[in-house]
Amino acid sequence: MTVLADLLISIFERTYKRVSDPITFDQRPLSELAHELVSTRSETRVLTLAREILSRYHLLDAAGKARFFSDVAQQLNLDPTRVRETLFDYERSPSRRTYRAYTEAAEPKRQEFIRRLNQMPGATEQLVKMRSDLLALATQDPNIDALDLDFLHLFSSWFNRGFLVLRPINWQSPAHILEKIIAYEAVHAIQNWDDLRRRLEPTDRRCYAFFHPSMPDEPLIFVEIALTQGIPNSIQSVLSQDRTPLLTQEADTAVFYSISNCQSGLMGVSFGNFLIKQVAADLALGLPNLSTFVTLSPIPDLSKWAEKNAIVPCDTLSPSEVAATYLLDAKNSAGHPLDPVARFHLGNGAIIHAIHESADTSDKGIAQSYGTMVNYLYDFDVVEKKHEMFFNKRLISATSTVSAKAERARKTISDERP
Amino acid sequence: MTVLADLLISIFERTYKRVSDPITFDQRPLSELAHELVSTRSETRVLTLAREILSRYHLLDAAGKARFFSDVAQQLNLDPTRVRETLFDYERSPSRRTYRAYTEAAEPKRQEFIRRLNQMPGATEQLVKMRSDLLALATQDPNIDALDLDFLHLFSSWFNRGFLVLRPINWQSPAHILEKIIAYEAVHAIQNWDDLRRRLEPTDRRCYAFFHPSMPDEPLIFVEIALTQGIPNSIQSVLSQDRTPLLTQEADTAVFYSISNCQSGLMGVSFGNFLIKQVAADLALGLPNLSTFVTLSPIPDLSKWAEKNAIVPCDTLSPSEVAATYLLDAKNSAGHPLDPVARFHLGNGAIIHAIHESADTSDKGIAQSYGTMVNYLYDFDVVEKKHEMFFNKRLISATSTVSAKAERARKTISDERP
Amino acid sequence: MTVLADLLISIFERTYKRVSDPITFDQRPLSELAHELVSTRSETRVLTLAREILSRYHLLDAAGKARFFSDVAQQLNLDPTRVRETLFDYERSPSRRTYRAYTEAAEPKRQEFIRRLNQMPGATEQLVKMRSDLLALATQDPNIDALDLDFLHLFSSWFNRGFLVLRPINWQSPAHILEKIIAYEAVHAIQNWDDLRRRLEPTDRRCYAFFHPSMPDEPLIFVEIALTQGIPNSIQSVLSQDRTPLLTQEADTAVFYSISNCQSGLMGVSFGNFLIKQVAADLALGLPNLSTFVTLSPIPDLSKWAEKNAIVPCDTLSPSEVAATYLLDAKNSAGHPLDPVARFHLGNGAIIHAIHESADTSDKGIAQSYGTMVNYLYDFDVVEKKHEMFFNKRLISATSTVSAKAERARKTISDERP
Amino acid sequence: MTVLADLLISIFERTYKRVSDPITFDQRPLSELAHELVSTRSETRVLTLAREILSRYHLLDAAGKARFFSDVAQQLNLDPTRVRETLFDYERSPSRRTYRAYTEAAEPKRQEFIRRLNQMPGATEQLVKMRSDLLALATQDPNIDALDLDFLHLFSSWFNRGFLVLRPINWQSPAHILEKIIAYEAVHAIQNWDDLRRRLEPTDRRCYAFFHPSMPDEPLIFVEIALTQGIPNSIQSVLSQDRTPLLTQEADTAVFYSISNCQSGLMGVSFGNFLIKQVAADLALGLPNLSTFVTLSPIPDLSKWAEKNAIVPCDTLSPSEVAATYLLDAKNSAGHPLDPVARFHLGNGAIIHAIHESADTSDKGIAQSYGTMVNYLYDFDVVEKKHEMFFNKRLISATSTVSAKAERARKTISDERP
Repeated sequence: MTVLADLLISIFERTYKRVSDPITFDQRPLSELAHELVSTRSETRVLTLAREILSRYHLLDAAGKARFFSDVAQQLNLDPTRVRETLFDYERSPSRRTYRAYTEAAEPKRQEFIRRLNQMPGATEQLVKMRSDLLALATQDPNIDALDLDFLHLFSSWFNRGFLVLRPINWQSPAHILEKIIAYEAVHAIQNWDDLRRRLEPTDRRCYAFFHPSMPDEPLIFVEIALTQGIPNSIQSVLSQDRTPLLTQEADTAVFYSISNCQSGLMGVSFGNFLIKQVAADLALGLPNLSTFVTLSPIPDLSKWAEKNAIVPCDTLSPSEVAATYLLDAKNSAGHPLDPVARFHLGNGAIIHAIHESADTSDKGIAQSYGTMVNYLYDFDVVEKKHEMFFNKRLISATSTVSAKAERARKTISDERP
Repeated sequence: MTVLADLLISIFERTYKRVSDPITFDQRPLSELAHELVSTRSETRVLTLAREILSRYHLLDAAGKARFFSDVAQQLNLDPTRVRETLFDYERSPSRRTYRAYTEAAEPKRQEFIRRLNQMPGATEQLVKMRSDLLALATQDPNIDALDLDFLHLFSSWFNRGFLVLRPINWQSPAHILEKIIAYEAVHAIQNWDDLRRRLEPTDRRCYAFFHPSMPDEPLIFVEIALTQGIPNSIQSVLSQDRTPLLTQEADTAVFYSISNCQSGLMGVSFGNFLIKQVAADLALGLPNLSTFVTLSPIPDLSKWAEKNAIVPCDTLSPSEVAATYLLDAKNSAGHPLDPVARFHLGNGAIIHAIHESADTSDKGIAQSYGTMVNYLYDFDVVEKKHEMFFNKRLISATSTVSAKAERARKTISDERP
Repeated sequence: MTVLADLLISIFERTYKRVSDPITFDQRPLSELAHELVSTRSETRVLTLAREILSRYHLLDAAGKARFFSDVAQQLNLDPTRVRETLFDYERSPSRRTYRAYTEAAEPKRQEFIRRLNQMPGATEQLVKMRSDLLALATQDPNIDALDLDFLHLFSSWFNRGFLVLRPINWQSPAHILEKIIAYEAVHAIQNWDDLRRRLEPTDRRCYAFFHPSMPDEPLIFVEIALTQGIPNSIQSVLSQDRTPLLTQEADTAVFYSISNCQSGLMGVSFGNFLIKQVAADLALGLPNLSTFVTLSPIPDLSKWAEKNAIVPCDTLSPSEVAATYLLDAKNSAGHPLDPVARFHLGNGAIIHAIHESADTSDKGIAQSYGTMVNYLYDFDVVEKKHEMFFNKRLISATSTVSAKAERARKTISDERP
Repeated sequence: MTVLADLLISIFERTYKRVSDPITFDQRPLSELAHELVSTRSETRVLTLAREILSRYHLLDAAGKARFFSDVAQQLNLDPTRVRETLFDYERSPSRRTYRAYTEAAEPKRQEFIRRLNQMPGATEQLVKMRSDLLALATQDPNIDALDLDFLHLFSSWFNRGFLVLRPINWQSPAHILEKIIAYEAVHAIQNWDDLRRRLEPTDRRCYAFFHPSMPDEPLIFVEIALTQGIPNSIQSVLSQDRTPLLTQEADTAVFYSISNCQSGLMGVSFGNFLIKQVAADLALGLPNLSTFVTLSPIPDLSKWAEKNAIVPCDTLSPSEVAATYLLDAKNSAGHPLDPVARFHLGNGAIIHAIHESADTSDKGIAQSYGTMVNYLYDFDVVEKKHEMFFNKRLISATSTVSAKAERARKTISDERP
C-alpha cells in the first residue's frame, strides 16, 4: 500500500525532471542506430540509443515512419539458415549453451529491438503508439506484417492480465484522464464535460477502466455502467438528462451500456472479458442488492447485413425479428456469430436476454440497426458453462422470447422465399 | 499521479478480497493441467487453471517440484520438426499466416505456459519463487536448463528497466518492506530493528530500492548510502553506533556501501547499474552540495585467490598491494576482472579510486580480504567513456595511487619468484 | 506519509458509506434541539443532534434561516450576570474550579453550539456555508452580529495557518476540484474547461491552493501564476491563446496574476499573505532560475475614485499618472491605501514596481481602471522590513518611475486647481 | 481522494525542506517574545516569534519550563477590570464593536498566545507536548491551573471529533508509527517487534487508531482487536503465541482487548467512545459475519479496593464475586462506578456481560485483580438507551450471571459482618 504511495511520489518527481533533459542527437540513420541497439552489450548505450530512436521517430512524417518500419522489419529479420543451424546443434547436443543459441536465433531481432526500446522509462506508451502508426499503414508487405506480429507478441506478454489494474473512474478522477474518456468513448459519444459529468457523478452511475502501471495516464479499456431497477429497454431512458438518479441501494441491476477500447496500438490484445467479470465482482461486493448484470448493446452491422441478404423489416417482419435471426443465424467462417458484439459477449458466456425496438432512436442507431438494441445477460453461475458450449459446440444461448422471434423471422423468410 | 493513488486503493481492496476465495481442486495430475493450460482458448479457463497449478505447486515438496519441472520441461518442449516445417512454409511464402505459424512453433510451449500462469493477479511473485526453486535444484538436465532459460527470457522482458520503479526506503516505510530489507541485506548484515533504524533514520543515511508494480511488496534490489564529508576509508567509521549524524547539507559525498539483490529467482536479470545511476541522479537533485559518488566495497574472494596463487600479504607485500594486483591483474576467461564486484562497478564505468587496509575488521572482512576494502568512484562525466573502454578494450581505470600499489606488488612478486 | 495515504482510503470509504444512512428526524423545533445540544453530556447525543440540526437547517428557506440565526443568537446569548458572578468568585479565590466556571460563563453558549455541531464528520464545510448564509442576511441585529463574530472567532482558530495544506492544482487534479477553480476565479473569469486547461497545463503555468484537511474537496484560496521572461506589462500577453509556452527552465519571473478567495463564509480569516510566501518558496525550490516574484494586479476602484475626485485621465494626465497618485495618495481612515489590492500587497511587504497602461483592455479593465494594471514586486530580502514600515510608519514603497508618475499627477492636479 | 494524495506529497516535501532552515535566535527573554507575539499585527512576525519561542522552549530544562509557564500564565492573565468595562459597554450598547471588545477582553491573552504559536506548521504536536510538560509539573499554582484549562479549551476545539481520522494499523503501516504503538501500549505491554507483529499480522487481528491531520505521525488513541469464535474468557488465550489464526470469515466476535491513549498532553479530551463505535462500524461493514462486539478488560484497582474494604477473595468469596460487587456497588462521589474502565464502557452504553477468573494470570493481572477480567458487551441496538439510563438514572446493566455473583458477594459479606 505504502509502496504504491511512494510510487506516486516517484511519478510526480519524474514529471518535474522530464523538463531539463535536452538530447543531443546522433546524426546517423535510424536503421544504423537500430542495428547498434540490438547489438550493443552496454546497458547505458541501450538507454541512449532507445531515447534517440524514439525521439527521432516521433518527428518523422508518415512516409518516414513507413520507411522506418520497412527498414527495421527487413534489417532485423529472421535468419533462417541460422535458425536451422542452431536447431540442429541443439538437437544433436541439447545443453544450456545450444538452447540459448537456438532461442536467440529463432526469434527475429525485431523483438529484441522492441524490448530494448522499452527499457527507456515511459517508452511503453510510445511503442503502443508506434504500433498504432504501423497498423494505420495497412500495407500488404509480409515483413511489416511480421513486425506487427512481433509487436503483438510482446504486447500480449506485457499487457498480461496479471499486470493490469482496475480503477474506478469518477468525477473525482484527474482531468487529464477524464478528457481521454471523452475522446475514447466509442459507442455513445460524450458531447462535453457536462455530458461526461452526467455519466460519472450521479449515485446510479459507475465507470471502470483497466490501466497498465507503465502507462498510468492512459486507460486501456473502460466500461460505463448504469445502476437501474429492472433491465432497461432503451438507451434513451438510460442517458436521459431529466431522469432522477436512483439511490444506490435501490438498484437491483447493473447495466453495462458502453465498452470502449482506447488504444488502437493494442489491437488483438483482449481485455474486455476480464474487465466485465472483475467490474461485476467489484460492484457485487459493494452493492449486495445487485442481482442482475446485463448489457445494453448495439448491433452495429444489422442493417448492412439485412440489406445485403434482403431480410429488411417490413409489415410481416419486425426489426427485432430481423435482429434475432441475425444474431442467432448469421455466422462467420469459424461458425461464430457474424456480429462482433454478440461474438464478444456470447464468447464470454453471456446469453441473449432480450431484443428491443426503438431502443436507440439516434440517427446512428436507426441507421445501423433500425433502432434495435440487445441485452446480453451475464449469469455468473453459468457463464463458464455457456462459454464452453459456445466454443466447443458453437451453441448460442438465448431466452425463449428471443428464440421465438428468430423462429418467426425464419418462418416469414422461408414463406416469402419459395 | 492520481492514477497511482487509485492503484493504491485497488491493491488495498484486493488484500481484503483475497480472504474469501476457496478453491476446489481438480484432481488430475499437474502435467495434464499444464497441457490444458497451453491449449485452451478460454480466458476464463486460463485463470482457473493458473490458479490451481500455482496453488498445488506451492504445496509440493522438493521432489514433487523437481518432477513438476521435469514434466513441464519435457512435455512442453520444442517440436523441431514443426519448427522446420513452418520455417520452410514461411520462407517459401512469407505472409502473416505463415509467420504466425512459425513464431508459434519456434518458441517452446513452456514460454506460453509461464505467460499464462502469469495471467493470474499476483502470479509474478510466485513465478519468481518458482524459478528460485528451479535454480536450487542445480540439476544437469538440459531440459531443465532450457526451462530455466525460458523463465529468464520472459523475466528479462517483464522486469525491463522501463517497468521498474525506484523508491526511497526509510523509517517511514512499511514494516513488511523493512523486514525484507533486514532479511535480504547481503553485505553487512543488519542485526535487528534497532540496527535497521540506524541505517535509515539519521539525516545522513539514505536507502533506495527498485520495485516492480506487480510485486509491490517485494524489493528487487536495494542500495544503502551514507552521506559523508570526504571519502571514508573503513566500514567501521560508516556504521559506528556512536557517530554524530551529519546535517544533510554538510555532506559532500554519497557512499554506496551496500548493494543487495533480493530475488534469487531473478538471477541473470541485471538491475544494479541502473539503480546506481538513478539513485545518484535523485540524490544530486535533492542535495546540490554532493560532488562525489563513490562506493565502499568488499573484495569477496581476495584471500582465496591470494592463497591459491601464493601472493599472500607479508613483510614485503602489504594487504592493499595484494588487493591492487588482484583487482588490476587477475582476469577471467573473458579478459574481465576476476573479482565480481570490480567487474560490476568497472563495467558500469567506475574507476578504482582507493584501496584501504583495516577497512573491514570484522571476522568476515579479515577472512575474505585481510580487512581491505575498495572505493569505486563514479564520475558521471566520464562513466560512459570508461564503460566503453572497459568493454571494448578491456581497460581498467585506477588512480595513480592504486596503480602504484599494483606496480609495487608486481615487482615484489617477480623479485621473489626467480 | 503513509499515514496520509491511509487517510485517503478512509475518505474513500466514507464516500461509499454516506449512501446508506437514513435519518429519522426529531419533530421538535430547531431552537429546542439547539438548547439540548449545548446542554447534553452525552457524546452520542451530540452527534445525533448535530446531524439533525445541520440536515434540517439545510432544508430551510432564507426566512427560516434568518429565524434560526436569530433564535440561536438570542437563546444562547451571554448571561452578563453570570459572567460577573463567576469573575468575582475567580478573583476572590482563584482556582481551577472558579476559573473553569468563569471561562464557561464568559463565552456565549453560541460558541459551544458551533463547536458541537462541528463534531459531526463533514460539518466544517456546512458551518462555513452557514456563516456565508448569515453574512448574506446583512442585518443590523447586534445579536446576529455577535453570532457572526462567534463564528469568526472559531474559524480563525480552526483555519489556523498551521492546519492548512498547500497543494498544486494542475491538469492532473480531480475534476470536482477543477470545476471549483472555474467557479471561484474572481479576477479574470475562466470561460470553460478549455480555458481552464490553458491556465494549468502549459509548462509555464502554475496554480496553488490552500486546503483544510476537514474540507478536502473545497479550496480556500488559490493563486494562478505565469512563468515569464521579464515582468509582463499586460494581462493580454499573459493570457494570449496564441503564445508559445516557455520551457520551464527559461523563465526568470513568476507572475501572480490572479488570487481568488473561495469561501465567503471565511470572510475575515486571512490566508493570502501566507499563500504568496509559501508558493514563492515552493517555486524557488523547484525552479532555481526564478529571480523575480511579482504580481500583475488590477486596480478595482480606480475610475470610481477618479470620477468622484475629478481626477480623470485627460490630455495632461495619463491613466497611469492617475493610478499612481491613487495608489500612493488615496488613503482610508486608518491611513492605509484606499485600494484594497494595494493594501493587501503593500501590507505583505511588496513594493509598487510599475504601472502599465492598456494592460487590461477588457471591458471590465477599461471600466474599472482605464485599462491600467500594477506590478507589486515581492523582494523577499526586504519584505519583512517593508511590511513593518508600512504598518508602523504608514510608508509605501514604490520605484522612482512610479513615484515620478505620482509626482507629475500631483503637480498637474495642483496646477489645474487654483 | 486525490486531494489527500497531494497532501501526501506536500508532507513529503516538508520533510526535505525542514533540513535547511537555520534559525537565528533573538536574545530577548521568552516572556518578552510572548508579549510581542500576542500584540503584533504582522502575520510574518507571528510566524517568526512562534518559531523562536517553540525552539527555545524545547531547549529549556524542567525548571526553565516551569518558569516559562509561570511567566506566561501571569503575564497574559485576564484583566478583570477590562472584562467588566467591556461587558458594561456591550450591555449598554450591544453592537459588533462592543461585542468584539468584550470577547477580546473576556478571554485571557494566554489563549491567543497558544493559538498564535499554533500558526507555525508542525506546532500542534509541540503544543501537545508542552501541555504534557505542564501537567507533569503538578503544581498547585492557580495561574498554572488556568493556563492548563486554556490549553484544554483549545485542544477540545482543535481535536474535535469531526477533525479526527480513523486509520487501520497493520504490518503494512510505517515503522515510525508502529514503534509508537509499541511505546504507547498501556494495557498488555508489547515486548518487541515480533510481539507487535503477532498483534497485527494474523488474519484474525485488527488495530485502529485516531489521528489528527496536523499530527500525522502521532496516533492519539488506538485499540487492538482479536477476531474470535465466541467470547474469550482469558487474555492468555487471546495472546497465545501458539494459537492458529482464524480465517477472517470464521470469526463471529470482535474483542476489543486493549485501548491505549497515546498523548498525555491531551488529557481530558476524550476519544475512546467514538473510537469504539467507529471501529465497530468499520469492522461490521467489512466482515458481515461479526455479530458480537465485546471487550476483554482489566479491573485495574480491584485488589486495592478489596483490601481497603476487607472484601478479599476467600473460601466463601470467589475472586469473580468480589469483582462483581466492586463493579456494581462501588461508586464514586458522582454515583458512577469507582472503576475507571467500567465507568468508561458503561458510560458508552455497554453492559457487563461476564467476569472471568484466571483471565489474566500475569504478575500484573494477579496483583491488580486476582487474575479476573471483564467482558463489556456493546449491543449497538441498545447502546444509546443504556447510555442514557447510565447517565440519567445511574443504572448499570449486567447479565443475570454477573448480577447473581454480585448478589452472592453481598450476601456473604453481610453474613460475615454482623
